[in-house]
Amino acid sequence: MNLKIAVLPGDGIGPEVILQAKKALYAIGEVYNHEFVFEEALMGAVAIDKTGNPLPEQTLNLCLNTDAVLLGAIGDPKYDNNPNAKVRPEQGLLKLRKELGLFANIRPIKPYKALIESSPLKREIIEGADFTIFRELTGGAYFGTKTLNEEGTHASDLCEYSEEEITRIAHLAFQSAQKRRKKLTMVDKANVLETSRLWRKVVQKVSEEYSDVKLDFLFVDNAAMQLILNPKQFDVILTENLFGDILSDEASVITGSIGLLPSVSLGEKNALFEPIHGSYPQAKGKNIANPIASILAAALLLEHFGLTKEAHVIYKAVEKAIEYKVVTVDLKPDSKFGTNEVGEFVSNFI
Amino acid sequence: MNLKIAVLPGDGIGPEVILQAKKALYAIGEVYNHEFVFEEALMGAVAIDKTGNPLPEQTLNLCLNTDAVLLGAIGDPKYDNNPNAKVRPEQGLLKLRKELGLFANIRPIKPYKALIESSPLKREIIEGADFTIFRELTGGAYFGTKTLNEEGTHASDLCEYSEEEITRIAHLAFQSAQKRRKKLTMVDKANVLETSRLWRKVVQKVSEEYSDVKLDFLFVDNAAMQLILNPKQFDVILTENLFGDILSDEASVITGSIGLLPSVSLGEKNALFEPIHGSYPQAKGKNIANPIASILAAALLLEHFGLTKEAHVIYKAVEKAIEYKVVTVDLKPDSKFGTNEVGEFVSNFI
Ligand SMILES: CC(C)[C@H](C(=O)O)[C@@H](O)C(=O)O
Ligand SMILES: CC(C)[C@H](C(=O)O)[C@@H](O)C(=O)O
Repeated sequence: MNLKIAVLPGDGIGPEVILQAKKALYAIGEVYNHEFVFEEALMGAVAIDKTGNPLPEQTLNLCLNTDAVLLGAIGDPKYDNNPNAKVRPEQGLLKLRKELGLFANIRPIKPYKALIESSPLKREIIEGADFTIFRELTGGAYFGTKTLNEEGTHASDLCEYSEEEITRIAHLAFQSAQKRRKKLTMVDKANVLETSRLWRKVVQKVSEEYSDVKLDFLFVDNAAMQLILNPKQFDVILTENLFGDILSDEASVITGSIGLLPSVSLGEKNALFEPIHGSYPQAKGKNIANPIASILAAALLLEHFGLTKEAHVIYKAVEKAIEYKVVTVDLKPDSKFGTNEVGEFVSNFI
Repeated sequence: MNLKIAVLPGDGIGPEVILQAKKALYAIGEVYNHEFVFEEALMGAVAIDKTGNPLPEQTLNLCLNTDAVLLGAIGDPKYDNNPNAKVRPEQGLLKLRKELGLFANIRPIKPYKALIESSPLKREIIEGADFTIFRELTGGAYFGTKTLNEEGTHASDLCEYSEEEITRIAHLAFQSAQKRRKKLTMVDKANVLETSRLWRKVVQKVSEEYSDVKLDFLFVDNAAMQLILNPKQFDVILTENLFGDILSDEASVITGSIGLLPSVSLGEKNALFEPIHGSYPQAKGKNIANPIASILAAALLLEHFGLTKEAHVIYKAVEKAIEYKVVTVDLKPDSKFGTNEVGEFVSNFI
């Protein structure tokens, strides 16, 4: 297979972890005779520094014309703590999601056997947990009109949703549930928000086409609690953009480290693969960042194009790395291994 | 001391748990020579059933003219799953918060020694955790304009904040931090939301008056993760309405049961005390609901009026109940004790 992949290393630890993902893909390409052509481009704070624009035209065009996008991470504290910054790295990511129409962000959560002890949660709580979060990614308060009055004393964010936006991701989530344990939990705040009530109504309607899937509803406050009290109750979780952002980071604790979790963002025509962790600027250049989430993002990419066998080789390699404790310090505080060594282990295993 | 207390038992388990809180207050009144006069009123689904209005005029007037409000819980599934309901129990609670100007909801989180094992989190994670969440309660998406178009296919919720709304709760949070470990963590989503950027700016400004308090910032997705990974890092958490709703329910897992956590909501003139749990309709009338959160809400009420010694007797009684395992099934699955027995134990201890 020939695949053209746009690579956006981004900020902070992005470049280092993406390098390891590329190494894994190269190794797969050699062994299984695929040609993966990588084209790198700028996005995030690094793009602002070089071009003034967090998502340069050139980057966007590249992403629109490749088979897939592989993203590192974006974000830089120099923007976070400056409420007056006019341009921010995150705008690049949000614009990319919007322009590529990546309406569904999918995050699988499942603890590794060898890592059960690294979780802050007790073994009996997490052993056997296995669920996937479907987060709507191009709507809600992320993209609604924002205002700040001239005096800078009053601000607003508008959260909007349409039936169409809810319907399309609901179908994906129900289809996924059909292939899994046939349970879908819709998370919202329908006792307060109008958009949540629309979500409930539309998801209820879509559910009629999936009578084999059991649908239930949870308020987001309760869901944030249930994820920790009893994560095994979940199969597929469906929710809007901001709730999905919060709940999926929270759910990462089940696996022991956010450094292990990849995600895929899907649109009608495009797909983007990334680790769910952020740019972790404090770790930049120190060879301590966990590359596994990025390597697994590469595996999700392979699966997306039907290269299931190849993806499974990567999963296996990652499992072995974890089993042999070839892991970074987030998983083993006294580890001698760094970003590079973990990446080497995985690509050598392939 | 003479106190006139408006009691709103509300829905579901509200009436049963509030009864136990009243028993504790009666006992305190007898032993320490205070006169607590309770006046009950309708709110929530029960008020809709009887009057059509989730917050009848009479209830509101009573609450405006008492020293304090003691609330059980509100909410009923028959409204939750009906996206078309025009009147909802929650409207009563939101209106009450607004009319009483209860802008700050304060939720202390601290595990009981005897219950460390009931938490889904490991002992070493939670032992020593001790923090307080300050949640803004009368602004944000809860109270902004809501729209639904005529076809019922497009909905919106507006999240708004003004400098003034942020300033007043920020002062309370900083003052609390000064009396504690002098650390304040502001939780927001300033990399995406305009309102969050306003929060950051205003809180930074207020912090200049509290130079002995260390201020830091966390994005809400990261905060949802950090609460579980390392809750001991927190002292005072300050956040907006919806984030506070999510994070404080999530944080309840640290204590082992949401049935243990009270909260106080403060305004310029009024104060409302309630358990943070909901109406838990499945448990209604079964004598299994945990009354401790409500009893502790009563203790917070005493503290609020300077009756510190009396409040501490209740804390002590609750600790003893937990130590002797006179607790409900949420804390001990094979417990023989119910709502009533736990309440009896506490008031007898006084
Ligand atoms: C960087 C930020 C804008 C982003 C988001 O909130 O969507 C990130 O947290 C994520 O989850 O991908
Ligand atoms: C019942 C509901 C409207 C309420 C809220 O979201 O504020 C509750 O969850 C709470 O936290 O007090």
